[in-house]
Amino acid sequence: MMRIGELSNRSNVPVATIKFYVREGLLPSGQRAKANQVSYDESHLRRLRLIRALVDVGKLSIATARRVLAILDDPSTSAFTGMGKAQYALSGHPDLDPDTPPPPAAAPEDLAEVDDLLARHGWSIRPGNPARAQLATAMATARALGLADGLELLDTYADAAQTVAEADVGLVVSPQAEQGTSPEATTLEESIERMLVWTVVGGQALAALRLLAQEATATKRL
Amino acid sequence: MMRIGELSNRSNVPVATIKFYVREGLLPSGQRAKANQVSYDESHLRRLRLIRALVDVGKLSIATARRVLAILDDPSTSAFTGMGKAQYALSGHPDLDPDTPPPPAAAPEDLAEVDDLLARHGWSIRPGNPARAQLATAMATARALGLADGLELLDTYADAAQTVAEADVGLVVSPQAEQGTSPEATTLEESIERMLVWTVVGGQALAALRLLAQEATATKRL
Repeated sequence: MMRIGELSNRSNVPVATIKFYVREGLLPSGQRAKANQVSYDESHLRRLRLIRALVDVGKLSIATARRVLAILDDPSTSAFTGMGKAQYALSGHPDLDPDTPPPPAAAPEDLAEVDDLLARHGWSIRPGNPARAQLATAMATARALGLADGLELLDTYADAAQTVAEADVGLVVSPQAEQGTSPEATTLEESIERMLVWTVVGGQALAALRLLAQEATATKRL
Repeated sequence: MMRIGELSNRSNVPVATIKFYVREGLLPSGQRAKANQVSYDESHLRRLRLIRALVDVGKLSIATARRVLAILDDPSTSAFTGMGKAQYALSGHPDLDPDTPPPPAAAPEDLAEVDDLLARHGWSIRPGNPARAQLATAMATARALGLADGLELLDTYADAAQTVAEADVGLVVSPQAEQGTSPEATTLEESIERMLVWTVVGGQALAALRLLAQEATATKRL
């Protein structure tokens, strides 16, 4: 147990910011020990790290971060649905975050092209996955901006994405979950936490590596 | 030549927004034809599409978009330096955009780890590439959040990024540029425009594909 000052020191988050997160419903309030003293424990420290990952690293809005954390705190969340819901929430799924405006509706012909791509790669995807509409929107944007030939790269992109995703899933799925034995609650929360954090941090690493590889390739070729 | 109403209709950008872009220095003002009439041409239409790509699709700030466009408009910009500068500007390089706060300084040991990774893959990168510091920051974040084992995936990530980057460079580099013959001004501007737009749109497509591949892989394995 620790007081808010120690929680602030250990987490490197200012006291005022900790109070803000409690007010916004991102961090459970501490236990009231005496009249003027609230105490926090290791779970608060861990949750603070996760909040910072979502808000500072992942650039999620407070509202989206609140939705993602609510999934973790829902006792009915199972490993598989939890990971799916959290992933959808990260993408700003409107059902999960009423404050996020829904993405511009993707045209049916763009969605059909996405579905063709998914089928070519043997990917089974629920139609509500927000990344499906995001991809359709990106494809429509490329076409509108005279980069329709960029769409020819997407099979190469999909192969690269599959390599990356297999590594990602291996990182966050525990062997118990794969064997179908029900993971313990802490393992489940940890799995979802790891998935959330790695989806964000790994996504940033991948974007940075793409830019670096572009410079390396352009330098070699020009 | 067209009046602002036609430019608005053809670009699907409201008149007030067009005026805002002119005021903010993103769009050159039209030619004053008569006392109360300003006329625009195809170059304005094309620039408007690019602005929307940067601001709406790329989520760049007005200040960053202005810097990126200034590179295009600088007659001393060559194909190679222009593409590099534009790429750096997209990453929010502080020298190019004084309004973007510099990213938290990456620790020397993280940068050293990035440089090891680059060396293992034979990538030649200028030390000022902002993606180098971004990758170091992502690695430090993963470690701070208990995901140090995620860093073991980065060689797999780098291979995937190289596949993607080779496709990217092939898309935007014209054969003339590769042969070393000086490309014409329009080809240069077009190349940089294509690179900018595809870096943004392709990056969104790659991020969406990674999320889709994660669901497909998790469904298969769980």
